Amino acid sequence: MLEKLKQEVLEANLALPKHGLVTFTWGNVSGIDREKGLVVIKPSGVPYTKLTQDELVVLDLEGNKVEGELNPSSDTPTHIVLYKAFPTIGGIVHTHSSWATSWAQAGRDIPAFGTTQADYFYGTIPCTRPMTPVEIAHDYEKETGNVIVETFQDISPEQIPGVLVHSHGPFAWGTDAANAIHNAVVLEEVAKMAYRTVDLNPEISAMDRHLLDKHFLRKHGADAYYGQ
Amino acid sequence: MLEKLKQEVLEANLALPKHGLVTFTWGNVSGIDREKGLVVIKPSGVPYTKLTQDELVVLDLEGNKVEGELNPSSDTPTHIVLYKAFPTIGGIVHTHSSWATSWAQAGRDIPAFGTTQADYFYGTIPCTRPMTPVEIAHDYEKETGNVIVETFQDISPEQIPGVLVHSHGPFAWGTDAANAIHNAVVLEEVAKMAYRTVDLNPEISAMDRHLLDKHFLRKHGADAYYGQ
Amino acid sequence: MLEKLKQEVLEANLALPKHGLVTFTWGNVSGIDREKGLVVIKPSGVPYTKLTQDELVVLDLEGNKVEGELNPSSDTPTHIVLYKAFPTIGGIVHTHSSWATSWAQAGRDIPAFGTTQADYFYGTIPCTRPMTPVEIAHDYEKETGNVIVETFQDISPEQIPGVLVHSHGPFAWGTDAANAIHNAVVLEEVAKMAYRTVDLNPEISAMDRHLLDKHFLRKHGADAYYGQ
Amino acid sequence: MLEKLKQEVLEANLALPKHGLVTFTWGNVSGIDREKGLVVIKPSGVPYTKLTQDELVVLDLEGNKVEGELNPSSDTPTHIVLYKAFPTIGGIVHTHSSWATSWAQAGRDIPAFGTTQADYFYGTIPCTRPMTPVEIAHDYEKETGNVIVETFQDISPEQIPGVLVHSHGPFAWGTDAANAIHNAVVLEEVAKMAYRTVDLNPEISAMDRHLLDKHFLRKHGADAYYGQ
Repeated sequence: MLEKLKQEVLEANLALPKHGLVTFTWGNVSGIDREKGLVVIKPSGVPYTKLTQDELVVLDLEGNKVEGELNPSSDTPTHIVLYKAFPTIGGIVHTHSSWATSWAQAGRDIPAFGTTQADYFYGTIPCTRPMTPVEIAHDYEKETGNVIVETFQDISPEQIPGVLVHSHGPFAWGTDAANAIHNAVVLEEVAKMAYRTVDLNPEISAMDRHLLDKHFLRKHGADAYYGQ
Repeated sequence: MLEKLKQEVLEANLALPKHGLVTFTWGNVSGIDREKGLVVIKPSGVPYTKLTQDELVVLDLEGNKVEGELNPSSDTPTHIVLYKAFPTIGGIVHTHSSWATSWAQAGRDIPAFGTTQADYFYGTIPCTRPMTPVEIAHDYEKETGNVIVETFQDISPEQIPGVLVHSHGPFAWGTDAANAIHNAVVLEEVAKMAYRTVDLNPEISAMDRHLLDKHFLRKHGADAYYGQ
Repeated sequence: MLEKLKQEVLEANLALPKHGLVTFTWGNVSGIDREKGLVVIKPSGVPYTKLTQDELVVLDLEGNKVEGELNPSSDTPTHIVLYKAFPTIGGIVHTHSSWATSWAQAGRDIPAFGTTQADYFYGTIPCTRPMTPVEIAHDYEKETGNVIVETFQDISPEQIPGVLVHSHGPFAWGTDAANAIHNAVVLEEVAKMAYRTVDLNPEISAMDRHLLDKHFLRKHGADAYYGQ
Repeated sequence: MLEKLKQEVLEANLALPKHGLVTFTWGNVSGIDREKGLVVIKPSGVPYTKLTQDELVVLDLEGNKVEGELNPSSDTPTHIVLYKAFPTIGGIVHTHSSWATSWAQAGRDIPAFGTTQADYFYGTIPCTRPMTPVEIAHDYEKETGNVIVETFQDISPEQIPGVLVHSHGPFAWGTDAANAIHNAVVLEEVAKMAYRTVDLNPEISAMDRHLLDKHFLRKHGADAYYGQ
């Protein structure tokens, strides 16, 4: 079942090492079939080089395994919370990619300093608040999803397709698994450039609002006309 | 038409990923036939690995498409402004290469700190002023070219073959598309070393003027004798 | 003799350049057969690309060579001290990997800033005190082991499988040679991210204790359930 | 003539891109036959990938070309000054490798912060003083050699096989061309780690003298016993 979605999710998982986003198995990608309400996700602990389409795990939105012999990624409850809360997203990526994780560990949002970020993120990429001892102790992976959703209370997940989880690392998402990978690569790249930007100019503030509007809106929404 | 120029522009576009200057399709190269007044440029949104010579777009200096089925790069109006204002240049490169872009995001010029820069740039690589809301709202890509031209009011584009556009990224140029790529690589390399130089010595000022003269002039102009 | 252990130690040594942990021959891996009390280690000065299983050196825990024509790594006495003091470890890696070595040269412990570290290290990765002139002059390599053991007086080597030797570089260990390599890669990766974390937020303190517990304990010990 | 030396010098030049020490043709290696008093050096401007043994240039110690159709590297006068002043060296490398060049641009010596440097350099790697306008204007490349020699007035070139030329970049040398390359790689690696060391601990001073002695002397001189 879901062969096409599985193929997309497999390819997206294989793209993680190709784009330098992962060490060992420190990352996972999922995709969702919205009509069927089923999620396809990487199994736990399998190296990317050995991963096959048959090993992907299928779950419903209550977290029940529908297909697959291996255990799903331990981060599965986080993915499921996000799919439920953000109804327009079709794929999710979690990694410990080093630049984004450094910002997450520092507990800092990534301001939009330039057009690279503005082409994909309509403003600041937020870092969540630290999780509470209770959230950590009880249903930790699910609560990780909840703290992300809380962070996006007043932010559109379509306009900001990624987040930093405090003391942890980035999640990114998109219209499907491939688009989520794309946004994860952008997030890592802008995290790297933002690090250097604040080092070169500690007084720098976020880019001009008009420039942000111009770049985001020429690529997204009704009046989009952009391509490079 | 323009088969030789197309071949040069194709090769220069393929050189972007080879030199590590681009993520995804974040860069484009063009070349100009000065006699015919025609520009060849990368089409919009096509990945480098799939790009063919036939897909390159030919335009005149008014921006009218003369040949090609795809849309030209959205940055085409910027290229055209530069070709008109800088009559001796034959090729232009735009990227979001990470070191140069970090300086652009910080809004800082790159001073000439050493002979690597002096071998190709006769002094500081300038960062443009921020663009105004009006410039951003109206003919943005063309105004991007205009703000570069304004920055070079008192600078020779032959002596400083590159610029940082504020909150955006670098443009570089040269005698032809291949030379423009060469200068884009140098710009990225000197941006990297300048970042580390100011970190190691925050009080550092630009290199000695005599040394700058020596290195630039032994490679460029009538008395050039250099090669490594 | 010890053909299986030799195979493991050979593969672990070959993994050093594969994971970017070494320049030239700046690293070595050993493994131990606890029942026989014999250590297999890289010979001195042989490039990884030319290393064969037959060239590995076998020693007893008094440092006597039992098999092998070449000299064992000069760091062998350090390895032997660690095998004696830490009875549950099965493999040891020493490198001059650049991020971990930078922390060692700075004489700083690496605090646990995030879950990447917490998944493998149950807290701070310590840096030893500087060695004394007497320790340096007399049995230097053995004393290097002793200063590590002193550093772990109140730390479990199973919970913190690595250390920085002051002004020198990292040692990591694990249940066997492959696991030691794995921990050496993690140590290098968290050293890199911690460097950037303190640069982004000089006031940052170690991660929340509950989060550290959660991540370390879901992967290690009786209640482990994690895999990605 | 000098076929064996040419082979060594060719291989050493090809090692420059292999070790990531060069962009384009920004580096050159030479070797000397001390009995014949002849130097073999890279020709000017030829890319490494196209370089052949026959294209190498042979010169005597007065700088007269003895063999070769191409022009020798423009840096040849610097090499010749060093061969004359440092009678025990057999090979010289010049590059603009990025970490070492950043220190050179910052005008800072690289202190010995750890055993990696101590294994090859018996203390600080010095940066020359800035060159004077007269030195720059007249016989610049030869004066570059002279300012290096002046820097080594009280330093043994055998104990410190490399230098940073102010606002320019590194030169390294060794017993032959291959050994000079080896030292150039070490210089770049220790420059990288020293940068991070001072960033992590701005108050750090050079490593303990006893540790420096131990590491340098166990590898160099009469009592050497080291290999990894």
